Amino acid sequence: MKATIVTIGDEILIGQIIDTNSGYIAKALDRIGVQTHELLSISDNKQHILETFEKLQNKVDFVIITGGLGPTKDDITKHTFCEYFNDSLVVNYEVQAHVIELIEKVMKRPASQINKDQALVPSNCQVLFNKVGTAPGMWMKKENTVYISLPGVPYEMKYIVENEIIPKIVKEYERPYILHKTIMTYGQGESLVAERIEDWENNLPEFIKLAYLPSPGRVRLRLTARGKDKELLETTINNKVESLAKIIGDIIVGFDEDETIAVVIGRLLIQNKNTLAVAESCTGGKIAQELTAVAGASNYFRGGVVSYATETKVSMLGVLEETITQHSVVSGEVAKEMAIGVQKRMKSDYAIATTGNAGPDKGDADATVGTVFIAIATPSEVFVEEFDFGQPREKVIDRAVNKAFEMLQKEILKNV
Amino acid sequence: MKATIVTIGDEILIGQIIDTNSGYIAKALDRIGVQTHELLSISDNKQHILETFEKLQNKVDFVIITGGLGPTKDDITKHTFCEYFNDSLVVNYEVQAHVIELIEKVMKRPASQINKDQALVPSNCQVLFNKVGTAPGMWMKKENTVYISLPGVPYEMKYIVENEIIPKIVKEYERPYILHKTIMTYGQGESLVAERIEDWENNLPEFIKLAYLPSPGRVRLRLTARGKDKELLETTINNKVESLAKIIGDIIVGFDEDETIAVVIGRLLIQNKNTLAVAESCTGGKIAQELTAVAGASNYFRGGVVSYATETKVSMLGVLEETITQHSVVSGEVAKEMAIGVQKRMKSDYAIATTGNAGPDKGDADATVGTVFIAIATPSEVFVEEFDFGQPREKVIDRAVNKAFEMLQKEILKNV
Repeated sequence: MKATIVTIGDEILIGQIIDTNSGYIAKALDRIGVQTHELLSISDNKQHILETFEKLQNKVDFVIITGGLGPTKDDITKHTFCEYFNDSLVVNYEVQAHVIELIEKVMKRPASQINKDQALVPSNCQVLFNKVGTAPGMWMKKENTVYISLPGVPYEMKYIVENEIIPKIVKEYERPYILHKTIMTYGQGESLVAERIEDWENNLPEFIKLAYLPSPGRVRLRLTARGKDKELLETTINNKVESLAKIIGDIIVGFDEDETIAVVIGRLLIQNKNTLAVAESCTGGKIAQELTAVAGASNYFRGGVVSYATETKVSMLGVLEETITQHSVVSGEVAKEMAIGVQKRMKSDYAIATTGNAGPDKGDADATVGTVFIAIATPSEVFVEEFDFGQPREKVIDRAVNKAFEMLQKEILKNV
Repeated sequence: MKATIVTIGDEILIGQIIDTNSGYIAKALDRIGVQTHELLSISDNKQHILETFEKLQNKVDFVIITGGLGPTKDDITKHTFCEYFNDSLVVNYEVQAHVIELIEKVMKRPASQINKDQALVPSNCQVLFNKVGTAPGMWMKKENTVYISLPGVPYEMKYIVENEIIPKIVKEYERPYILHKTIMTYGQGESLVAERIEDWENNLPEFIKLAYLPSPGRVRLRLTARGKDKELLETTINNKVESLAKIIGDIIVGFDEDETIAVVIGRLLIQNKNTLAVAESCTGGKIAQELTAVAGASNYFRGGVVSYATETKVSMLGVLEETITQHSVVSGEVAKEMAIGVQKRMKSDYAIATTGNAGPDKGDADATVGTVFIAIATPSEVFVEEFDFGQPREKVIDRAVNKAFEMLQKEILKNV
């Protein structure tokens, strides 16, 4: 059972926006054993869309299309559906009633003709009802291929995928069994990890595939097993993970596919009934943001101070002026005082502090671009490490955030 | 002059990571007049890669491939290149010397055989030197199509695109002229904007295309002109933008394609020599993070407090306990005191404060999930608005951040 996911929109082809919809859909399909064959982004051009539909006809079971369903003139998916399926648009009155109600409720004005036209759908399509927006999804079959069209607005697309498409496929189609297991490792590079597990990797059975997913400071190892015998897959993959843990147990930090390190840290803090606060300079709020992106963060995250201006390190965190004068604002001493300051003022058990220069210019400090100090305060001590995260700005910030989480996690694990 | 961008990697097809490389490359190509025909993501499978190469042969001028170049076994692009071009791998000694040096410098250990093998390249390829990583890029031509292979690590890919590929294409190929102009509007939905500019849109010449790019709270309008007469394109597009401004001038906030609202606000603050501080509860540091993602933010951003726990709103921002008891922690009154508190403590001219419930649970407050109060403090006053941003969590946070920026921008513009 295979799918190709097609995104329609010139804005993607000129790099103005990044397509995150396809990844979401691919993940949802993967969970129910539908394999995504390709992701494809094409232009808003009717001829291009028709050619794509034809190429995919009978090559995959599902073609899932996002984008091109909005109310404006550059949205042409619906008309192209009609041409491809030799159909014409008719009003779906259930959708129309919903559009009118939604516009009145949310926009506090009557629905315009452009709004109402959202309820026009090809006469032979099965409507996938969009409760959270105005553009309905559509499901149409031609020979062996189902063409599914979805709005491009992410939360509308998600709503229809979760509530309409996935249940429908699960109910109506038989699918093979796919099992993933992701092992998160921290602190060693891809090639070093590869060397350590070379023998283990060479002994994997054919139905299990290994992939390395490196990102700054960490490597995730993903095992994928595919087959019909669910039990065999599960037993084999679990045995393989166990034997892997014997080889690189020192760098393994977690196993869940979707888990970010912020999630892992949150769980550890809850287990230990501990709390966390952060004082950020060069990371500018990103540590707090990643922590609070996790639902339930209020159970352990006290809060943070983004002490961007030097003066606020003194006024908001109690860093001593003489420490800044003596050691400069980008220094281990300042990082430590920031960590202790926020720990004390926010009454937390742990604290993270960052100070550094993310570039592109030198800013307040003499520090080289890329230099970052990260301090961790625990219930009993405070320590600091210095890093050179290079360039550009975005990489410095990301690597500092990751490294800070990694350092904190190690400390929490020591105290479990 | 057309390109197709191909991403290799199963991790993308199961939705484990989002491909941001293709968007970056598409944007870089667009700037020099190379049109991206399609973006395509395919599996790590050699047969799949070969089929894709064949399909694209002579269909586009450039096939730009990212991924599949790392040191580990699941990376197979190089071997597939050899098969497709009937070539074999040889050591490139310049690359090898660089790999050995880089590993010793960064990893502080000698390069392993796996590292050194990164210097193996097809004998007929032109190496695109990767100064910031170990995997070199490759450039190989077959008939009318150039195949370019790049590492998947974003900053390595970016380095090679900027320093090798773009200069090479600019030097060696003639390209048409593409001109984009993006008009950013805030505060009205896509269909309302479409209605207001319907006549204007109908009168656009054939060589100018209009696209609507909606996101929460804002719509960007992108005009794209394509042709050989640079001057004609520029004059026409400028005239069209001028006449557009006469129709929807009230909602236009900026014109630059790459400009986020955080950039626009930064520029306004610098112009007025004003500063900003933020107090965030439900947005959890995201406002600070978006502000500090802009290089040079230290010129106007004083800092922020992420007062996630109720208690820290009192201790760090001076919100009165009785205000919280009387009005609840998610209330306009608390938002106002947070804004004033951070403005005073960080000595800023403007301040933003957010308090709300992003969900999924009710948390500290009685407020419904989705309820957010946003307060703006200016040099002379403070005011607050209440919003219902619905669900899920991620959408509530994003919409609150956007709305806060929009409110702040309006206030700054009043005082210019």
